[in-house]
Amino acid sequence: MNTIGTIYRITTFGESHGPAVGGVIDGVPAGITIDFDAVAAQLARRRPGQSALTTARNESDAAEFLSGFLGNTTLGSPIGFIIRNSDTRSSDYDNMARLYRPNHADYSYDAKYGIRDHRGGGRSSARVTAPLVVAGAIARQALEQRGIAVQAYPVEIGGTRGTIEDMEGAITQARRSGDSVGGIIECVASGVPAGIGEPIGGKLHAMLASAMMSINAAKGFEYGDGFAGAAARGSECADLPYSDSDGRIRTRANHSGGIQGGISNGEDIVMRIAFKPVPTIAIPLETVDSDGNAATLAARGRHDPCVIPRAVPIVEAMAAITIFDALLLNRCAKWNI
Amino acid sequence: MNTIGTIYRITTFGESHGPAVGGVIDGVPAGITIDFDAVAAQLARRRPGQSALTTARNESDAAEFLSGFLGNTTLGSPIGFIIRNSDTRSSDYDNMARLYRPNHADYSYDAKYGIRDHRGGGRSSARVTAPLVVAGAIARQALEQRGIAVQAYPVEIGGTRGTIEDMEGAITQARRSGDSVGGIIECVASGVPAGIGEPIGGKLHAMLASAMMSINAAKGFEYGDGFAGAAARGSECADLPYSDSDGRIRTRANHSGGIQGGISNGEDIVMRIAFKPVPTIAIPLETVDSDGNAATLAARGRHDPCVIPRAVPIVEAMAAITIFDALLLNRCAKWNI
Amino acid sequence: MNTIGTIYRITTFGESHGPAVGGVIDGVPAGITIDFDAVAAQLARRRPGQSALTTARNESDAAEFLSGFLGNTTLGSPIGFIIRNSDTRSSDYDNMARLYRPNHADYSYDAKYGIRDHRGGGRSSARVTAPLVVAGAIARQALEQRGIAVQAYPVEIGGTRGTIEDMEGAITQARRSGDSVGGIIECVASGVPAGIGEPIGGKLHAMLASAMMSINAAKGFEYGDGFAGAAARGSECADLPYSDSDGRIRTRANHSGGIQGGISNGEDIVMRIAFKPVPTIAIPLETVDSDGNAATLAARGRHDPCVIPRAVPIVEAMAAITIFDALLLNRCAKWNI
Amino acid sequence: MNTIGTIYRITTFGESHGPAVGGVIDGVPAGITIDFDAVAAQLARRRPGQSALTTARNESDAAEFLSGFLGNTTLGSPIGFIIRNSDTRSSDYDNMARLYRPNHADYSYDAKYGIRDHRGGGRSSARVTAPLVVAGAIARQALEQRGIAVQAYPVEIGGTRGTIEDMEGAITQARRSGDSVGGIIECVASGVPAGIGEPIGGKLHAMLASAMMSINAAKGFEYGDGFAGAAARGSECADLPYSDSDGRIRTRANHSGGIQGGISNGEDIVMRIAFKPVPTIAIPLETVDSDGNAATLAARGRHDPCVIPRAVPIVEAMAAITIFDALLLNRCAKWNI
Repeated sequence: MNTIGTIYRITTFGESHGPAVGGVIDGVPAGITIDFDAVAAQLARRRPGQSALTTARNESDAAEFLSGFLGNTTLGSPIGFIIRNSDTRSSDYDNMARLYRPNHADYSYDAKYGIRDHRGGGRSSARVTAPLVVAGAIARQALEQRGIAVQAYPVEIGGTRGTIEDMEGAITQARRSGDSVGGIIECVASGVPAGIGEPIGGKLHAMLASAMMSINAAKGFEYGDGFAGAAARGSECADLPYSDSDGRIRTRANHSGGIQGGISNGEDIVMRIAFKPVPTIAIPLETVDSDGNAATLAARGRHDPCVIPRAVPIVEAMAAITIFDALLLNRCAKWNI
Repeated sequence: MNTIGTIYRITTFGESHGPAVGGVIDGVPAGITIDFDAVAAQLARRRPGQSALTTARNESDAAEFLSGFLGNTTLGSPIGFIIRNSDTRSSDYDNMARLYRPNHADYSYDAKYGIRDHRGGGRSSARVTAPLVVAGAIARQALEQRGIAVQAYPVEIGGTRGTIEDMEGAITQARRSGDSVGGIIECVASGVPAGIGEPIGGKLHAMLASAMMSINAAKGFEYGDGFAGAAARGSECADLPYSDSDGRIRTRANHSGGIQGGISNGEDIVMRIAFKPVPTIAIPLETVDSDGNAATLAARGRHDPCVIPRAVPIVEAMAAITIFDALLLNRCAKWNI
Repeated sequence: MNTIGTIYRITTFGESHGPAVGGVIDGVPAGITIDFDAVAAQLARRRPGQSALTTARNESDAAEFLSGFLGNTTLGSPIGFIIRNSDTRSSDYDNMARLYRPNHADYSYDAKYGIRDHRGGGRSSARVTAPLVVAGAIARQALEQRGIAVQAYPVEIGGTRGTIEDMEGAITQARRSGDSVGGIIECVASGVPAGIGEPIGGKLHAMLASAMMSINAAKGFEYGDGFAGAAARGSECADLPYSDSDGRIRTRANHSGGIQGGISNGEDIVMRIAFKPVPTIAIPLETVDSDGNAATLAARGRHDPCVIPRAVPIVEAMAAITIFDALLLNRCAKWNI
Repeated sequence: MNTIGTIYRITTFGESHGPAVGGVIDGVPAGITIDFDAVAAQLARRRPGQSALTTARNESDAAEFLSGFLGNTTLGSPIGFIIRNSDTRSSDYDNMARLYRPNHADYSYDAKYGIRDHRGGGRSSARVTAPLVVAGAIARQALEQRGIAVQAYPVEIGGTRGTIEDMEGAITQARRSGDSVGGIIECVASGVPAGIGEPIGGKLHAMLASAMMSINAAKGFEYGDGFAGAAARGSECADLPYSDSDGRIRTRANHSGGIQGGISNGEDIVMRIAFKPVPTIAIPLETVDSDGNAATLAARGRHDPCVIPRAVPIVEAMAAITIFDALLLNRCAKWNI
């Protein structure tokens, strides 16, 4: 239930304000050389406190690797790692112990488990994505060794499309008014060979959708022409095949987003993920506590006005994990290899 | 790879023009009384040839149950069933044996497997959704016994929103011009208790996304405010909790679509799925064969101009399968029950 | 729960006296050419009624393949198949509807499910091994194409070791006295390359143990020196490595049974499986019915006095399934292949 | 591949001489109160260096819990934990970097992965069982709260059956001669309710066999009458059902070892596991290095002459994990609960 992947599998653990978050990455093939600095660089991209646009919480986010390597080469055994939590000023959250924050998972967790670590959201905090970034960073390096690149970027923030400056402006404006904004991230995976993904239970886009929807605050997933393409005619969105100068089958357009029938066709894999506005805002909101008593809640402390900047490396991580997993699983597709 | 679900699991098999499609449903709790006519009625909704809007292919679509029942009560053992293929005029497809149909899975299957059953799309045909409808129909009956209902309906076809007549008009118009249209289906699950879904690897919306994206031609998934909500401010989409007259925690709005932190909160679960236009159209399209030789392809024979009418029961089936599975898995969430 | 395997996976269904048993084999690599007569031959080995030593029940045991093949070549899609039950004279079992047969699963099924198909044991019948033999026969052919052979044979029946004649004599004697006997089957897999099996959760011998213990009436599993080896000294059972004339690392003895640390070492894989005596005997036994009323039960009808002759091909099937699965999974062990 | 269990799942990581071993326990129901001292006590039972009978290696074996608890109550989220390795004098192993130790996994690991952490056996060391003991200790406490107890004890060491003194004598004698001995452990689970275990793919004894065979040095598994029972007649080993004074169905004998058809019947679950002699002995053995050059190897340093004393708590842990897992999974067996 806390595992993502089939062959390359990351099982995570950790609450926001517990001693550490971390995970075990299983199914890592032996013999991959890893640049640990590059892993740290990916974690740094996700880390809060990097700019005026993100939360002030100071997380060191250094992953300690405990197994699975001989020097910097993977052994084929599972990679265990932890990331210590620090700056966990739990008292910031004391007033919220029994309050249900609107649009948070407080009530749904209580309904499910009958017990909840309320400090910083506990298991429902975005803090739990840090281990996923570690798993993504390792997958990414393996993919790069095969010429596969994954890149994500915002295409809309707070309803604003266009330049980065405009989108940053939307965040700044929301922050000033004590409010928050959401947005849309696009992710492109290039160099993915044709043939990965499974036809029914593990369609490549279904695995990508599942992985992306595992990111906190994600509300929608589409690939290729997506929702907009639902309004097109079949003749308008045909990706006409042709044979390129190397004799490779390509398509003249890519409305399909690089996936046909759940299996990659060698074109760029293109997808977009929608994120809701951060629910924790300074504007007072009406709510109840766990006994049903009415209350008013206005967030104090450190919170992002927008998840998009920090979600970009997480989206890349989930794409890398999923594609790497599909690539490995595909080794079993043909008997004669 | 051809299995959907964790506890309640459906593994399907079958090619479009082979002897049969079918499946095994495992993890069915013992003691559910099933109305087989209601299962047949769900299959009938998916069946082609029902109206001018859908393909003329005559499929009987009768499921033969081979195991798992004593009379009409589930035994707890797996339910095996088959649906014989009929009217499989393979010669209709002879001219397409080596051609890559644009926006179909022909090339991607060849790239993956090096072999392909080209007749009617083989394993990539929408025919393979029939077993999923059977699994959905059984799950649906169990859910109904607990007051949980699942309903889907089109909200957009060919870019047209509004009345059913308008949407049907869009299909008719596409058919006349030898073209096709896509659309968007909304699905609502009501009566789902708070607390189902898993927090990270099995978020309820991630499982729903994965299930829906397993349907042929699906290109996008969103729940709650989805993509549109990415443009809102946090203060605009807060679902304010309150205690209702029965002392139950509810929310005054449902921007969250009934799921918070991956776990149901007791409100209606609301999601939308985008489908692309049917790629098989009568308008000639340029393509290549498996040797890279240029060719032109215009579909003959029987094809839907739009998947939406037949996709509606499939969407309901996938929702029912997923919610039933999550409901069962949730029995392990608390130690004291 | 009714699935065996990780990559090459067989999910079975069927009750003894329902319409059919069958299964879906998923994870079959594309491009394996299958001899269907050889599959039928394996089923025939398991079939009852072949000699005076086995039950008189006349099962046709013909598998009907419904998917997954183009001609006789695997497509990479799941292989669905059914084996119709015939000669299911249910009335033979009417007197046992509510009786708990000693050493059968009648009571444990009732305790688990609260409902039970009592006819011929329902899901607990050895009939359910027929689909496993189909999956094994396909795996076996693939393995043979790589020089891997699997062979099983009885080493003890009714406490008698020695010649086949002696062991057959033990069965005949048991039958005459209305009693039954058990026995031990040894199975050797030769030609298995070094390196297959996973180190912890999927040790090759653990997978073999699990597969063998899935066979009806199996009570014990050992590999290499097994239980007897527990009495040896370390110096007595050392498999000393040496380099053979081809420069391949071999061991001078094979106390390890071809597996070290859960991973094959290239020597013959040797295992033994213990089977209990058939619990259904003509000698009257005291029991109770589901209300706890005392009763006496003496089997009438057709029953084997010993499972060993028919278990031999099942043991081979389980070995083939497990080794084929491990062979495929091992394709992901190294990054550079 | 490094995961054991279906609902209650432990994924372990760690090499013998890396920074730490540890794991993530997923699927833990919320609301279990855990006594951490009792967990530590179980780890202490497995710890080496406790008596003259076990290795002198000084392992602190203190588990640090990183997540999954609020105070000492489980949250339902995964339990991450690590056990630091200490006293890892790697130089002890320098002379064995390229040598293949007889009856160890050195060669098979090289064959599988092409890379190996030779220090102390790396991933193939018995050190990796420590995380399993942690998972077992938690499962055990939950089981005890339901009246289920698990107990293991040696029944044979070095071929000696009888008193503990005799068995200890066999170990002492082996140590003095620089040799080693194996043995057999029996394990009994009492209080297990009837009805747990799955009929085919997850028979309770198959899961127990798989779990037990995951323990280092395990070579055989049997339950009930096991291998010896294969020599009995059906009439000799019938467990005759009767209704006890509470109206509960019991059996007068327990040749079945508490499991019929893969499902518990409420009697004691009784199983035995065979362990081979420790392969690391002081007596010189011939071997080769990874280039095939002949060499002679005699173990220096700290090694157990027998695994049995330390394997007892591991056997209990594996039994507790498996039974707890089956107990949880069984919550989905019936629709009406």
